[in-house]
Amino acid sequence: MSWPAGGGAVICGRGLLSKADIRIALDAMGGDHAPEEIVRGALQAREEGVGVVLVGREADISPYLPANLDGLGLVLASEVIGSHEPPVEALRLKPHSSIRVGLELVKRGEAHGFVSAGSTGAVAAAAVLVLGNIPGVERPALGLPYATPSGPAIILDVGANADCRPQFLLQFAHLGARYMERVWGIASPRIALLSSGEEEEKGNRLVRESHNLLKKSGLNFIGNLEGKDLLRGLAEVVVSDGFTGNVLIKATEGFGEAIHHELRHALRSRFYLRPLALLLRPALKEVVRKMDYNEYGGAHLLGVQGNVFVAHGRSKALAIKNALLMARRVADQGVLEALTEEKWLSLR
Amino acid sequence: MSWPAGGGAVICGRGLLSKADIRIALDAMGGDHAPEEIVRGALQAREEGVGVVLVGREADISPYLPANLDGLGLVLASEVIGSHEPPVEALRLKPHSSIRVGLELVKRGEAHGFVSAGSTGAVAAAAVLVLGNIPGVERPALGLPYATPSGPAIILDVGANADCRPQFLLQFAHLGARYMERVWGIASPRIALLSSGEEEEKGNRLVRESHNLLKKSGLNFIGNLEGKDLLRGLAEVVVSDGFTGNVLIKATEGFGEAIHHELRHALRSRFYLRPLALLLRPALKEVVRKMDYNEYGGAHLLGVQGNVFVAHGRSKALAIKNALLMARRVADQGVLEALTEEKWLSLR
Repeated sequence: MSWPAGGGAVICGRGLLSKADIRIALDAMGGDHAPEEIVRGALQAREEGVGVVLVGREADISPYLPANLDGLGLVLASEVIGSHEPPVEALRLKPHSSIRVGLELVKRGEAHGFVSAGSTGAVAAAAVLVLGNIPGVERPALGLPYATPSGPAIILDVGANADCRPQFLLQFAHLGARYMERVWGIASPRIALLSSGEEEEKGNRLVRESHNLLKKSGLNFIGNLEGKDLLRGLAEVVVSDGFTGNVLIKATEGFGEAIHHELRHALRSRFYLRPLALLLRPALKEVVRKMDYNEYGGAHLLGVQGNVFVAHGRSKALAIKNALLMARRVADQGVLEALTEEKWLSLR
Repeated sequence: MSWPAGGGAVICGRGLLSKADIRIALDAMGGDHAPEEIVRGALQAREEGVGVVLVGREADISPYLPANLDGLGLVLASEVIGSHEPPVEALRLKPHSSIRVGLELVKRGEAHGFVSAGSTGAVAAAAVLVLGNIPGVERPALGLPYATPSGPAIILDVGANADCRPQFLLQFAHLGARYMERVWGIASPRIALLSSGEEEEKGNRLVRESHNLLKKSGLNFIGNLEGKDLLRGLAEVVVSDGFTGNVLIKATEGFGEAIHHELRHALRSRFYLRPLALLLRPALKEVVRKMDYNEYGGAHLLGVQGNVFVAHGRSKALAIKNALLMARRVADQGVLEALTEEKWLSLR
């Protein structure tokens, strides 16, 4: 198979990716299982009608492409940023990285969103560099959607800003609120502030000062939320600085794995339960999936001028498919337009 | 039954709590299940030879006491500090609280440690007030012991200091190291810094500055640790500011509950698995217990001049018993003496 050399232009497979489709650029080179699982995820999303533009090295991607290329595109990018490279330096040294080329497609309006399972830091830095912030937004935040018994929720920031000022957290609350309104149709979503105690005076200085700002914000602020209540569905938007948020979501991941491991061990160590371990596997898998990033495919970088999604580095096809579906949904619902209309300057 | 009025003196049940025993003062009034479960926990610990001095209101405690009072003591305290009262104010308004009276027993050498399932903030503030810091220790830290596949570990601070400076974290590392050496006999325990990434440059400003101090500390510092690796047993001492640490341990608790709930639901919703739910209960319970605060009974306030333990507010008898056993072990191993010998002034 041979693709025409691209130089950044969208090349439609067999010319069947129409201009009218919502199409999402996908970093084919990012993540632990790139490019095979990434391409497989793209093909699965295509089954559900998402137009996908793969971005990366032709030689790496081609082996995994099917004969029928309807609804797929490929844009060549000759460089790859590794997950452990210092983001800003890597972007400078590799101007033709799949991350940068993909974001440039969004910038030029040739894709309606960008999904990468590559380095979160590099995607966030490149998005600010290439797309820029929505005017008035001080810091974009990484928002992670998750499931609760009372419906979807989002926690932000989960890693874009390690050091925050109270004004940043106020803006994160607004970003999250608009997101939940547009994407999930939730009017006046409940906003909570992640803290070490429910009482107003609990928390560190940042949280206490942010609490005061949020009380006066006009948002539906319900107060502080403790970590133990995160999954209970008491709020649709949970606001945190990016350091605490990141530590938290990674710990949750590790804890899920530890429980999984312990449970299997406990089953095996009881001879009468050993045959059941096999029967239980679907149930265990369902539990892990439900609490997993796979459910919504990844995090949304809110506050830049484009729809940018970071999937987990360990994403396999399912997570990539879900991230692409989510990206289409977000593009379709006009989240970016709603965020752009917000009066950010009054929130600084 | 009638106890002689105490006014703070240790009253030994039937006079059989000998001066030579290790005895631990126990706040009979603190926690969601006080006083019944607290007293039950005391009785269970007594079975294992721990001398326990119950502190609280006679009328509340007496109904739960057995006929045989060997190895038990009671010290009367007429006031109770609720878990939601602002700690410093509550201590001022209630000089005869069970927390304060219990700590005064430690101060006077009439008990070798103090355990409370009451307000963490009130216990920490009262401990500093009544016992004082070990000379040179800037801030006492709340350390939570937990189990990993490679043995016991401790994470600190999990709630005593919401806002920290790098020097505090350096001292926390030393507190944790001495603790693991003395209590668990681990020579040169591995110290890690909780962060949002393994790389040295990851984390917020506090973590990056603390990383530099720890590198030069002479401790066995292995670098940053992500939340997902917390339970893997890569380090014996995990250092964090009290805000992040507190959010983390509470989230872990909530996550355990959510998994438990989901798994039960998943089992019940599959007809062929429904009969197994009952068989599985012991295995599930073992998993939850293993990852639970019940295992070690509670957190240790390290850095004050006394052995002070905070059990979880929801502690039932088992957790209280384990906290009392841990308190005896800590008193027995001379942790406080080891901490007092450390050259704290050089660590400021």
